[in-house]
Amino acid sequence: MTAYTATVTVRLKRGVLDPEADTTQKTLERLGFELSDLRSADQFEVDLDAESADAAAERADEMAQRLLANPTLHDYDVVVEEQGV
Amino acid sequence: MTAYTATVTVRLKRGVLDPEADTTQKTLERLGFELSDLRSADQFEVDLDAESADAAAERADEMAQRLLANPTLHDYDVVVEEQGV
Repeated sequence: MTAYTATVTVRLKRGVLDPEADTTQKTLERLGFELSDLRSADQFEVDLDAESADAAAERADEMAQRLLANPTLHDYDVVVEEQGV
Repeated sequence: MTAYTATVTVRLKRGVLDPEADTTQKTLERLGFELSDLRSADQFEVDLDAESADAAAERADEMAQRLLANPTLHDYDVVVEEQGV
């Protein structure tokens, strides 16, 4: 078994309103920053032991489907790295 | 000017309690998943026009310092990519 870190990034699907991101963008603009768009996402870094990077990715994918993401609202992606490399 | 996307990832510093991440981890374990740790982070994807990738990174860094991160609680990193590449 090898120790991996799976990073699951959960984003709102295009077209889903994100008032928090809108407020953050407006506040940055009020502070004088110029930007054309701002999107927010949640990221989960999961440490887990698995036989292979593929097995770790599969388990993280299942975690996203079961709990971390809501398929109606969210898209997600999973990136796996071996720990300490 | 070139269009860039700056991704600012804001994490709690080591040692700062994160009850939401703890609850997420416990819920995953209750669902039968084995994991050794889970950390959560906020990610902001900022679209902006700048003269260079360095200039875009500098501005995103300033946004993190002014608004997106709280230096007492958070560490952050900034990754800049040219749009549409």
